[in-house]
Amino acid sequence: MTDTAATRSPLSPTARSTVGRLRGRAATDRATLDDILDQGLICHLGVTLRGAPVVIPTIYGRIGDTLYLHGSTGAGNLRAALTGEISVAVTLVDAIVYARAAMHFSMNYRSAVIHGCPVEITDDDERTAALRAVVEHSAPGAWDTVRPPDKKESAATIVLALDLTEASVKTRTGDPSDDPADLDSPAWAGILPVHTTFGAPIPSADLAHESDVPAHIRARARAM
Amino acid sequence: MTDTAATRSPLSPTARSTVGRLRGRAATDRATLDDILDQGLICHLGVTLRGAPVVIPTIYGRIGDTLYLHGSTGAGNLRAALTGEISVAVTLVDAIVYARAAMHFSMNYRSAVIHGCPVEITDDDERTAALRAVVEHSAPGAWDTVRPPDKKESAATIVLALDLTEASVKTRTGDPSDDPADLDSPAWAGILPVHTTFGAPIPSADLAHESDVPAHIRARARAM
Repeated sequence: MTDTAATRSPLSPTARSTVGRLRGRAATDRATLDDILDQGLICHLGVTLRGAPVVIPTIYGRIGDTLYLHGSTGAGNLRAALTGEISVAVTLVDAIVYARAAMHFSMNYRSAVIHGCPVEITDDDERTAALRAVVEHSAPGAWDTVRPPDKKESAATIVLALDLTEASVKTRTGDPSDDPADLDSPAWAGILPVHTTFGAPIPSADLAHESDVPAHIRARARAM
Repeated sequence: MTDTAATRSPLSPTARSTVGRLRGRAATDRATLDDILDQGLICHLGVTLRGAPVVIPTIYGRIGDTLYLHGSTGAGNLRAALTGEISVAVTLVDAIVYARAAMHFSMNYRSAVIHGCPVEITDDDERTAALRAVVEHSAPGAWDTVRPPDKKESAATIVLALDLTEASVKTRTGDPSDDPADLDSPAWAGILPVHTTFGAPIPSADLAHESDVPAHIRARARAM
Protein backbone atom coordinates (compact mmCIF):
# COMPACT_ATOMS: atom_id res chain seq x y z
CA MET A 1 0.00 0.00 0.00
CA THR A 2 2.93 2.30 -0.49
CA ASP A 3 2.79 2.21 -4.26
CA THR A 4 2.06 5.80 -5.19
CA ALA A 5 2.09 5.42 -8.95
CA ALA A 6 -1.36 3.97 -9.39
CA THR A 7 -2.57 4.59 -5.89
CA ARG A 8 -3.93 7.38 -3.85
CA SER A 9 -1.72 6.19 -1.02
CA PRO A 10 -3.26 5.68 2.41
CA LEU A 11 -0.03 6.97 3.86
CA SER A 12 -0.15 10.18 1.88
CA PRO A 13 0.22 13.57 3.57
CA THR A 14 -3.26 14.41 2.44
CA ALA A 15 -5.11 11.95 4.61
CA ARG A 16 -6.66 14.74 6.61
CA SER A 17 -6.36 17.43 3.98
CA THR A 18 -9.12 15.64 2.11
CA VAL A 19 -11.42 16.90 4.83
CA GLY A 20 -14.82 17.53 3.44
CA ARG A 21 -13.85 16.44 -0.03
CA LEU A 22 -17.06 14.53 -0.42
CA ARG A 23 -19.05 17.71 -0.05
CA GLY A 24 -20.34 18.57 -3.48
CA ARG A 25 -18.48 15.80 -5.25
CA ALA A 26 -20.01 13.50 -7.79
CA ALA A 27 -22.36 10.80 -6.66
CA THR A 28 -19.90 8.17 -7.84
CA ASP A 29 -17.64 8.94 -4.90
CA ARG A 30 -20.50 8.70 -2.51
CA ALA A 31 -21.61 5.43 -4.08
CA THR A 32 -18.08 4.07 -3.63
CA LEU A 33 -18.09 5.08 0.02
CA ASP A 34 -21.43 3.38 0.56
CA ASP A 35 -20.25 0.25 -1.27
CA ILE A 36 -17.15 -0.02 0.90
CA LEU A 37 -19.11 0.49 4.09
CA ASP A 38 -21.82 -1.94 3.01
CA GLN A 39 -19.34 -4.66 2.00
CA GLY A 40 -17.04 -4.41 5.02
CA LEU A 41 -17.61 -6.77 7.91
CA ILE A 42 -15.85 -4.73 10.58
CA CYS A 43 -14.39 -1.29 11.01
CA HIS A 44 -11.38 -0.10 12.96
CA LEU A 45 -12.30 2.69 15.35
CA GLY A 46 -9.60 5.13 16.39
CA VAL A 47 -10.08 7.15 19.56
CA THR A 48 -7.81 9.19 21.78
CA LEU A 49 -7.53 7.68 25.23
CA ARG A 50 -5.37 9.38 27.84
CA GLY A 51 -3.62 11.31 25.11
CA ALA A 52 -2.74 8.35 22.92
CA PRO A 53 -4.46 6.85 19.90
CA VAL A 54 -6.20 3.51 20.41
CA VAL A 55 -7.45 1.43 17.49
CA ILE A 56 -10.21 -1.10 18.13
CA PRO A 57 -12.01 -3.47 15.77
CA THR A 58 -15.77 -3.35 16.04
CA ILE A 59 -18.95 -3.88 14.07
CA TYR A 60 -21.04 -1.06 12.68
CA GLY A 61 -24.11 -0.21 10.68
CA ARG A 62 -25.08 2.51 8.24
CA ILE A 63 -28.33 4.35 7.60
CA GLY A 64 -28.07 6.91 4.84
CA ASP A 65 -25.42 9.45 5.77
CA THR A 66 -24.81 8.13 9.26
CA LEU A 67 -22.53 5.41 10.57
CA TYR A 68 -23.61 3.78 13.81
CA LEU A 69 -21.40 2.13 16.43
CA HIS A 70 -22.46 0.52 19.65
CA GLY A 71 -20.92 -0.95 22.73
CA SER A 72 -21.14 -1.36 26.45
CA THR A 73 -21.81 1.73 28.52
CA GLY A 74 -18.84 0.60 30.56
CA ALA A 75 -16.47 0.73 27.60
CA GLY A 76 -13.83 3.36 28.19
CA ASN A 77 -13.01 3.57 24.52
CA LEU A 78 -16.56 4.46 23.56
CA ARG A 79 -16.79 7.04 26.33
CA ALA A 80 -13.51 8.45 25.05
CA ALA A 81 -15.01 8.59 21.57
CA LEU A 82 -17.62 11.02 22.84
CA THR A 83 -15.08 13.52 24.11
CA GLY A 84 -13.62 14.48 20.76
CA GLU A 85 -12.85 13.41 17.26
CA ILE A 86 -12.72 9.81 16.12
CA SER A 87 -11.55 8.11 12.97
CA VAL A 88 -13.20 5.02 11.53
CA ALA A 89 -11.61 2.95 8.79
CA VAL A 90 -13.18 0.20 6.71
CA THR A 91 -10.79 -1.60 4.38
CA LEU A 92 -11.47 -4.26 1.76
CA VAL A 93 -8.37 -6.10 0.53
CA ASP A 94 -8.85 -7.19 -3.08
CA ALA A 95 -5.45 -8.54 -4.13
CA ILE A 96 -1.75 -8.80 -3.38
CA VAL A 97 0.21 -6.90 -6.03
CA TYR A 98 3.41 -8.67 -7.09
CA ALA A 99 5.91 -6.34 -8.75
CA ARG A 100 9.41 -6.65 -10.26
CA ALA A 101 10.83 -4.27 -7.66
CA ALA A 102 10.51 -4.60 -3.90
CA MET A 103 9.25 -1.06 -3.46
CA HIS A 104 6.35 -1.59 -5.87
CA PHE A 105 4.79 -4.45 -3.95
CA SER A 106 1.37 -3.31 -2.88
CA MET A 107 -2.22 -4.30 -2.30
CA ASN A 108 -5.28 -3.68 -4.37
CA TYR A 109 -7.84 -2.45 -1.91
CA ARG A 110 -10.73 -0.14 -1.26
CA SER A 111 -10.75 1.87 1.94
CA ALA A 112 -12.92 4.47 3.57
CA VAL A 113 -11.67 6.59 6.44
CA ILE A 114 -14.22 8.74 8.20
CA HIS A 115 -13.42 11.54 10.61
CA GLY A 116 -15.72 13.40 12.93
CA CYS A 117 -17.13 13.97 16.36
CA PRO A 118 -19.71 11.31 17.12
CA VAL A 119 -22.85 12.00 19.07
CA GLU A 120 -24.57 9.68 21.48
CA ILE A 121 -28.04 8.62 20.38
CA THR A 122 -30.59 8.80 23.17
CA ASP A 123 -33.87 8.85 21.25
CA ASP A 124 -35.47 5.42 21.65
CA ASP A 125 -36.60 5.09 18.05
CA GLU A 126 -33.24 6.12 16.63
CA ARG A 127 -31.45 3.79 19.02
CA THR A 128 -33.59 0.87 17.89
CA ALA A 129 -33.04 1.77 14.25
CA ALA A 130 -29.30 2.04 14.84
CA LEU A 131 -29.05 -1.29 16.67
CA ARG A 132 -31.10 -2.87 13.94
CA ALA A 133 -28.72 -1.43 11.34
CA VAL A 134 -25.70 -2.85 13.19
CA VAL A 135 -27.24 -6.32 13.50
CA GLU A 136 -28.48 -6.27 9.91
CA HIS A 137 -25.05 -5.19 8.71
CA SER A 138 -23.47 -8.26 10.30
CA ALA A 139 -26.40 -10.56 9.65
CA PRO A 140 -28.78 -9.32 6.94
CA GLY A 141 -32.31 -10.55 7.50
CA ALA A 142 -31.71 -11.60 11.09
CA TRP A 143 -33.21 -8.73 13.08
CA ASP A 144 -36.83 -9.68 12.51
CA THR A 145 -36.19 -13.27 13.62
CA VAL A 146 -34.62 -12.55 17.01
CA ARG A 147 -35.50 -11.04 20.37
CA PRO A 148 -34.99 -7.26 20.33
CA PRO A 149 -33.01 -5.60 23.11
CA ASP A 150 -34.85 -5.49 26.42
CA LYS A 151 -34.74 -2.55 28.81
CA LYS A 152 -31.77 -3.87 30.73
CA GLU A 153 -29.76 -4.60 27.59
CA SER A 154 -30.66 -1.25 26.10
CA ALA A 155 -29.64 0.60 29.26
CA ALA A 156 -26.25 -1.11 29.13
CA THR A 157 -25.65 -0.12 25.52
CA ILE A 158 -24.27 3.11 24.20
CA VAL A 159 -25.07 4.00 20.59
CA LEU A 160 -22.93 6.47 18.68
CA ALA A 161 -23.71 8.19 15.39
CA LEU A 162 -20.99 9.52 13.11
CA ASP A 163 -21.79 11.72 10.14
CA LEU A 164 -20.26 10.49 6.89
CA THR A 165 -19.59 13.96 5.52
CA GLU A 166 -15.89 13.94 6.26
CA ALA A 167 -14.80 10.79 4.53
CA SER A 168 -11.83 9.83 2.43
CA VAL A 169 -12.16 7.01 -0.08
CA LYS A 170 -9.03 5.43 -1.49
CA THR A 171 -8.69 2.58 -3.91
CA ARG A 172 -5.97 0.76 -5.78
CA THR A 173 -6.80 -1.50 -8.68
CA GLY A 174 -4.99 -3.24 -11.49
CA ASP A 175 -1.47 -4.27 -12.30
CA PRO A 176 1.77 -3.43 -10.52
CA SER A 177 3.28 -0.07 -11.41
CA ASP A 178 6.80 -1.13 -12.21
CA ASP A 179 9.48 1.16 -13.59
CA PRO A 180 10.10 0.73 -17.34
CA ALA A 181 13.69 -0.30 -16.58
CA ASP A 182 12.43 -3.27 -14.56
CA LEU A 183 10.08 -4.70 -17.19
CA ASP A 184 12.66 -7.19 -18.45
CA SER A 185 12.99 -8.68 -14.95
CA PRO A 186 12.54 -12.45 -14.81
CA ALA A 187 10.34 -11.96 -11.74
CA TRP A 188 6.65 -12.78 -12.02
CA ALA A 189 4.42 -9.72 -11.91
CA GLY A 190 0.69 -9.57 -11.47
CA ILE A 191 -1.95 -9.81 -8.83
CA LEU A 192 -3.06 -12.57 -6.49
CA PRO A 193 -6.77 -11.97 -5.80
CA VAL A 194 -7.94 -12.07 -2.19
CA HIS A 195 -11.49 -13.19 -1.54
CA THR A 196 -13.64 -13.11 1.56
CA THR A 197 -16.07 -16.01 1.52
CA PHE A 198 -18.57 -17.59 3.86
CA GLY A 199 -18.37 -21.25 4.76
CA ALA A 200 -21.18 -23.63 5.59
CA PRO A 201 -23.24 -22.44 8.60
CA ILE A 202 -22.53 -24.37 11.82
CA PRO A 203 -25.52 -24.70 14.19
CA SER A 204 -24.99 -23.86 17.84
CA ALA A 205 -24.52 -26.93 20.05
CA ASP A 206 -27.55 -25.82 22.09
CA LEU A 207 -29.83 -25.48 19.07
CA ALA A 208 -32.15 -28.17 20.38
CA HIS A 209 -35.05 -27.80 18.03
CA GLU A 210 -35.05 -28.91 14.45
CA SER A 211 -34.21 -25.86 12.44
CA ASP A 212 -33.20 -25.62 8.84
CA VAL A 213 -30.70 -22.90 8.10
CA PRO A 214 -32.95 -19.98 7.20
CA ALA A 215 -32.97 -18.49 3.72
CA HIS A 216 -31.30 -15.23 4.77
CA ILE A 217 -28.23 -17.18 5.89
CA ARG A 218 -28.25 -19.72 3.06
CA ALA A 219 -28.47 -16.91 0.52
CA ARG A 220 -25.47 -15.26 2.09
CA ALA A 221 -23.32 -18.37 2.04
CA ARG A 222 -23.96 -18.53 -1.69
CA ALA A 223 -23.50 -14.84 -2.36
CA MET A 224 -19.80 -14.38 -1.74
CA MET B 1 -18.12 -7.85 18.91
CA THR B 2 -20.10 -6.57 21.84
CA ASP B 3 -20.90 -9.96 23.26
CA THR B 4 -19.20 -9.94 26.63
CA ALA B 5 -20.28 -13.35 27.83
CA ALA B 6 -17.81 -15.43 25.86
CA THR B 7 -15.66 -12.58 24.70
CA ARG B 8 -12.92 -10.44 25.99
CA SER B 9 -14.63 -7.51 24.34
CA PRO B 10 -12.58 -5.17 22.16
CA LEU B 11 -14.67 -2.33 23.47
CA SER B 12 -13.92 -3.14 27.07
CA PRO B 13 -12.67 -0.50 29.49
CA THR B 14 -9.49 -2.46 29.86
CA ALA B 15 -8.16 -1.92 26.36
CA ARG B 16 -5.30 0.17 27.69
CA SER B 17 -5.29 -1.26 31.19
CA THR B 18 -3.85 -4.41 29.69
CA VAL B 19 -0.67 -2.42 29.17
CA GLY B 20 2.28 -4.68 29.43
CA ARG B 21 0.18 -7.72 30.12
CA LEU B 22 2.35 -9.79 27.81
CA ARG B 23 5.34 -9.15 30.00
CA GLY B 24 5.99 -12.36 31.84
CA ARG B 25 2.92 -14.11 30.56
CA ALA B 26 2.89 -17.62 29.21
CA ALA B 27 4.35 -18.28 25.80
CA THR B 28 0.92 -19.28 24.53
CA ASP B 29 -0.16 -15.65 24.55
CA ARG B 30 2.93 -14.63 22.69
CA ALA B 31 2.40 -17.40 20.19
CA THR B 32 -1.17 -16.20 19.64
CA LEU B 33 0.07 -12.67 19.05
CA ASP B 34 2.62 -13.90 16.54
CA ASP B 35 0.01 -16.05 14.80
CA ILE B 36 -2.38 -13.13 14.41
CA LEU B 37 0.35 -10.85 13.10
CA ASP B 38 1.67 -13.51 10.75
CA GLN B 39 -1.76 -14.37 9.35
CA GLY B 40 -3.03 -10.81 8.91
CA LEU B 41 -2.66 -9.19 5.51
CA ILE B 42 -2.90 -5.59 6.65
CA CYS B 43 -2.91 -3.61 9.86
CA HIS B 44 -4.73 -0.46 10.84
CA LEU B 45 -2.34 2.18 12.11
CA GLY B 46 -3.67 4.82 14.47
CA VAL B 47 -1.76 8.07 14.86
CA THR B 48 -2.56 11.46 16.31
CA LEU B 49 -2.53 14.15 13.64
CA ARG B 50 -3.26 17.74 14.61
CA GLY B 51 -4.81 16.54 17.84
CA ALA B 52 -7.18 13.99 16.33
CA PRO B 53 -6.88 10.26 15.80
CA VAL B 54 -6.36 9.07 12.23
CA VAL B 55 -6.66 5.39 11.29
CA ILE B 56 -4.89 4.21 8.13
CA PRO B 57 -4.69 0.75 6.57
CA THR B 58 -1.17 -0.30 5.66
CA ILE B 59 1.04 -3.34 5.24
CA TYR B 60 3.61 -4.43 7.79
CA GLY B 61 6.21 -7.02 8.63
CA ARG B 62 7.46 -8.68 11.79
CA ILE B 63 10.88 -9.81 12.89
CA GLY B 64 10.90 -11.37 16.34
CA ASP B 65 9.63 -8.82 18.84
CA THR B 66 9.44 -5.94 16.40
CA LEU B 67 6.72 -4.81 14.01
CA TYR B 68 7.90 -2.83 11.00
CA LEU B 69 5.95 -0.26 9.01
CA HIS B 70 7.09 1.71 6.03
CA GLY B 71 5.91 4.52 3.86
CA SER B 72 6.86 7.60 1.92
CA THR B 73 9.05 10.15 3.68
CA GLY B 74 6.44 12.66 2.54
CA ALA B 75 3.65 10.91 4.42
CA GLY B 76 2.34 13.19 7.13
CA ASN B 77 0.80 10.31 8.99
CA LEU B 78 4.10 8.47 9.32
CA ARG B 79 5.88 11.63 10.43
CA ALA B 80 3.11 12.11 12.97
CA ALA B 81 3.68 8.55 14.13
CA LEU B 82 7.20 9.50 15.16
CA THR B 83 6.08 12.27 17.46
CA GLY B 84 4.29 10.14 20.00
CA GLU B 85 2.40 6.98 20.67
CA ILE B 86 0.75 4.92 17.98
CA SER B 87 -1.67 2.02 18.03
CA VAL B 88 -1.60 -0.79 15.49
CA ALA B 89 -4.45 -3.30 15.15
CA VAL B 90 -4.49 -6.53 13.20
CA THR B 91 -7.86 -8.30 13.12
CA LEU B 92 -8.80 -11.68 11.68
CA VAL B 93 -12.54 -12.23 11.30
CA ASP B 94 -13.37 -15.92 11.68
CA ALA B 95 -17.17 -16.07 11.73
CA ILE B 96 -20.42 -14.18 12.08
CA VAL B 97 -22.15 -15.25 15.29
CA TYR B 98 -25.93 -15.60 14.92
CA ALA B 99 -27.75 -15.46 18.25
CA ARG B 100 -31.38 -15.65 19.41
CA ALA B 101 -31.21 -12.13 20.81
CA ALA B 102 -30.15 -9.01 18.92
CA MET B 103 -27.66 -7.96 21.57
CA HIS B 104 -25.81 -11.28 21.39
CA PHE B 105 -24.93 -11.02 17.71
CA SER B 106 -21.19 -10.93 17.47
CA MET B 107 -18.14 -11.98 15.50
CA ASN B 108 -15.65 -14.71 16.15
CA TYR B 109 -12.32 -13.06 15.64
CA ARG B 110 -8.73 -12.79 16.72
CA SER B 111 -7.24 -9.36 17.19
CA ALA B 112 -3.97 -7.88 18.31
CA VAL B 113 -3.66 -4.25 19.31
CA ILE B 114 -0.16 -2.94 19.89
CA HIS B 115 0.67 0.34 21.58
CA GLY B 116 3.96 2.14 21.73
CA CYS B 117 6.25 4.86 20.51
CA PRO B 118 7.83 3.79 17.22
CA VAL B 119 11.39 4.62 16.31
CA GLU B 120 12.69 5.42 12.87
CA ILE B 121 15.17 2.90 11.55
CA THR B 122 18.22 4.51 9.96
CA ASP B 123 20.74 1.67 9.99
CA ASP B 124 21.06 0.39 6.44
CA ASP B 125 21.13 -3.29 7.34
CA GLU B 126 18.11 -3.05 9.62
CA ARG B 127 16.23 -1.00 7.03
CA THR B 128 16.86 -3.66 4.41
CA ALA B 129 15.83 -6.41 6.80
CA ALA B 130 12.67 -4.49 7.69
CA LEU B 131 11.71 -3.81 4.08
CA ARG B 132 12.35 -7.44 3.30
CA ALA B 133 10.08 -8.44 6.19
CA VAL B 134 7.31 -6.18 4.91
CA VAL B 135 7.52 -7.54 1.35
CA GLU B 136 7.82 -11.14 2.56
CA HIS B 137 4.82 -10.64 4.81
CA SER B 138 2.67 -9.61 1.83
CA ALA B 139 4.35 -11.95 -0.63
CA PRO B 140 6.29 -14.79 0.99
CA GLY B 141 9.20 -15.93 -1.15
CA ALA B 142 9.14 -12.88 -3.39
CA TRP B 143 11.99 -10.76 -2.03
CA ASP B 144 14.78 -12.83 -3.50
CA THR B 145 13.19 -12.72 -6.96
CA VAL B 146 12.85 -8.94 -7.31
CA ARG B 147 14.99 -5.84 -7.56
CA PRO B 148 15.84 -4.52 -4.09
CA PRO B 149 15.31 -0.83 -3.28
CA ASP B 150 17.80 1.46 -4.98
CA LYS B 151 19.29 4.53 -3.31
CA LYS B 152 16.58 6.87 -4.55
CA GLU B 153 13.78 4.57 -3.44
CA SER B 154 15.43 3.98 -0.10
CA ALA B 155 15.90 7.71 0.49
CA ALA B 156 12.21 8.26 -0.15
CA THR B 157 11.15 5.58 2.33
CA ILE B 158 10.72 5.89 6.05
CA VAL B 159 10.92 2.71 8.10
CA LEU B 160 9.39 2.52 11.56
CA ALA B 161 9.93 -0.11 14.22
CA LEU B 162 7.39 -0.76 16.96
CA ASP B 163 8.18 -2.98 19.92
CA LEU B 164 5.59 -5.70 20.53
CA THR B 165 5.89 -5.57 24.30
CA GLU B 166 2.70 -3.64 24.88
CA ALA B 167 0.19 -5.74 23.04
CA SER B 168 -3.34 -6.84 23.75
CA VAL B 169 -4.65 -10.04 22.21
CA LYS B 170 -8.38 -10.67 22.15
CA THR B 171 -10.27 -13.57 20.68
CA ARG B 172 -13.81 -14.81 20.48
CA THR B 173 -14.54 -18.38 19.45
CA GLY B 174 -17.45 -20.75 19.48
CA ASP B 175 -21.20 -20.55 19.75
CA PRO B 176 -23.42 -17.59 20.54
CA SER B 177 -23.82 -16.80 24.23
CA ASP B 178 -27.55 -16.60 24.47
CA ASP B 179 -29.50 -16.15 27.67
CA PRO B 180 -31.12 -19.37 28.97
CA ALA B 181 -34.55 -17.76 28.60
CA ASP B 182 -33.97 -17.34 24.86
CA LEU B 183 -32.98 -20.93 24.09
CA ASP B 184 -36.49 -21.90 23.01
CA SER B 185 -36.48 -19.17 20.37
CA PRO B 186 -37.36 -20.36 16.88
CA ALA B 187 -34.45 -18.27 15.54
CA TRP B 188 -31.48 -20.08 14.06
CA ALA B 189 -28.35 -19.82 16.19
CA GLY B 190 -24.82 -20.71 15.27
CA ILE B 191 -21.89 -19.37 13.34
CA LEU B 192 -21.30 -18.55 9.69
CA PRO B 193 -17.58 -19.08 9.06
CA VAL B 194 -15.69 -16.32 7.23
CA HIS B 195 -12.71 -17.36 5.14
CA THR B 196 -10.01 -15.36 3.43
CA THR B 197 -8.84 -17.15 0.31
CA PHE B 198 -6.58 -16.46 -2.63
CA GLY B 199 -7.86 -16.72 -6.19
CA ALA B 200 -5.95 -17.71 -9.29
CA PRO B 201 -2.95 -15.42 -9.94
CA ILE B 202 -3.50 -12.93 -12.79
CA PRO B 203 -0.35 -11.99 -14.74
CA SER B 204 0.35 -8.32 -15.34
CA ALA B 205 -0.64 -7.14 -18.83
CA ASP B 206 2.97 -6.07 -19.41
CA LEU B 207 4.44 -9.43 -18.42
CA ALA B 208 5.87 -9.91 -21.88
CA HIS B 209 8.09 -12.89 -21.28
CA GLU B 210 6.84 -16.39 -20.84
CA SER B 211 6.69 -16.94 -17.13
CA ASP B 212 5.00 -19.69 -15.23
CA VAL B 213 3.52 -18.63 -11.92
CA PRO B 214 6.37 -19.33 -9.52
CA ALA B 215 6.09 -21.95 -6.81
CA HIS B 216 5.98 -19.43 -3.95
CA ILE B 217 2.78 -17.95 -5.39
CA ARG B 218 1.23 -21.24 -6.50
CA ALA B 219 1.81 -22.69 -3.04
CA ARG B 220 0.04 -19.74 -1.52
CA ALA B 221 -3.01 -19.97 -3.74
CA ARG B 222 -3.38 -23.54 -2.55
CA ALA B 223 -2.68 -22.85 1.10
CA MET B 224 -5.72 -20.84 2.12
